[in-house]
Amino acid sequence: MQIRIYYEDTDAGGIVYHTNYIKYCERARSELFFEKGLTPTDGEASGFVVKNINADFLGMSMLGDMVEVTTKLLKKKNSSLILEQSVLKNEKIIFKMEIILVFVREGRPARIPESMSEILD
Amino acid sequence: MQIRIYYEDTDAGGIVYHTNYIKYCERARSELFFEKGLTPTDGEASGFVVKNINADFLGMSMLGDMVEVTTKLLKKKNSSLILEQSVLKNEKIIFKMEIILVFVREGRPARIPESMSEILD
Amino acid sequence: MQIRIYYEDTDAGGIVYHTNYIKYCERARSELFFEKGLTPTDGEASGFVVKNINADFLGMSMLGDMVEVTTKLLKKKNSSLILEQSVLKNEKIIFKMEIILVFVREGRPARIPESMSEILD
Amino acid sequence: MQIRIYYEDTDAGGIVYHTNYIKYCERARSELFFEKGLTPTDGEASGFVVKNINADFLGMSMLGDMVEVTTKLLKKKNSSLILEQSVLKNEKIIFKMEIILVFVREGRPARIPESMSEILD
Repeated sequence: MQIRIYYEDTDAGGIVYHTNYIKYCERARSELFFEKGLTPTDGEASGFVVKNINADFLGMSMLGDMVEVTTKLLKKKNSSLILEQSVLKNEKIIFKMEIILVFVREGRPARIPESMSEILD
Repeated sequence: MQIRIYYEDTDAGGIVYHTNYIKYCERARSELFFEKGLTPTDGEASGFVVKNINADFLGMSMLGDMVEVTTKLLKKKNSSLILEQSVLKNEKIIFKMEIILVFVREGRPARIPESMSEILD
Repeated sequence: MQIRIYYEDTDAGGIVYHTNYIKYCERARSELFFEKGLTPTDGEASGFVVKNINADFLGMSMLGDMVEVTTKLLKKKNSSLILEQSVLKNEKIIFKMEIILVFVREGRPARIPESMSEILD
Repeated sequence: MQIRIYYEDTDAGGIVYHTNYIKYCERARSELFFEKGLTPTDGEASGFVVKNINADFLGMSMLGDMVEVTTKLLKKKNSSLILEQSVLKNEKIIFKMEIILVFVREGRPARIPESMSEILD
């Protein structure tokens, strides 16, 4: 998934504001569903919730840059996932994180639906 | 209402990203309700919807600045409001807009509830 | 220019937060430059500054939607531009604005550089 | 530091968008400087850069909530800091992160200036 850096993504330091890399990763996770005509929920009261993020900021990007987000499944359990997501600029990793997601239904961890499970493999 | 300018508010131009002034005005509108322990809705399917914004960008602000947002009711009808909102820095207006808001219930314009009506006077 | 609606674009009302349409229009203006390998500045101290926005919010969009941004030049003067920008969903206009931009160099209005002038025609 | 949750902070899930907690922590770090009339840089080419974030998302917050951000210094070296920052709602921790910050001058790690060093103790 390719993402362009716009003014809104940068800050007065002249580079991309740090939390935006984490937003780009969320876009990439959602896009896995959207591009199949699905959403990352099977109803109002369900969806993936972020439990933990461990993120390394390794480089920087600037206005007008194109970056790429990659997503790799590290581990899948009944109701949770561990993904590794990276942001690359010119094929060099500038951001990398491990993220733990839990599928929640009515506020409680629940089995990830089959249909979603396939998308994330 | 006082608002501090943080890194997230600025862009690579070194100043506040233009649309953020419109966000500050929304914060000020919502704060009128929150400070009374209310929300700007009386249920899931109701709330104010923005119809039109006419905004003049008159000055700029930067990282660390404190700005102030003022809100004045220009006109009130059954289901809509016209407000004038300004952002000031050192008592000088740097942003000013007129905004038309419509109260909507289940997707249709509806009478503004009495309780809300008072808050906005 | 196609834009996907992600979680970050929506708010607790379940639809796109109003100011984000104005951000999408900025993305579209910048993209005119980026896609040609340029930026909307010819040095640190120059660039386009927003002077006025008059925006009509005509419809709504939601998580996962694809919207399109169109940009039309209404008027061009030495140092300023008036553009009409629209956001469309399923070929229906859901947002439309007129925006006045001024080219500024070291804090003062300045002649729009030739190279940029062509891009905006 | 008290922070109010506005529409812009929430998403279509009805709660605060996950990365915003990390933004609130940045606001709190910057505010340590701003409230003393300083900025977290001593010139254009210097400032703190985020190296690593390890964040636990423990609870949630919603439109209109007031949350509090606390900041604790865990470790200080010549050119880097480790902080623990938490976001609390009704005195309960809903978000907690450890963050490693490096002071950078002209792109390279540099000794944290004395003046800043005191602020962060």
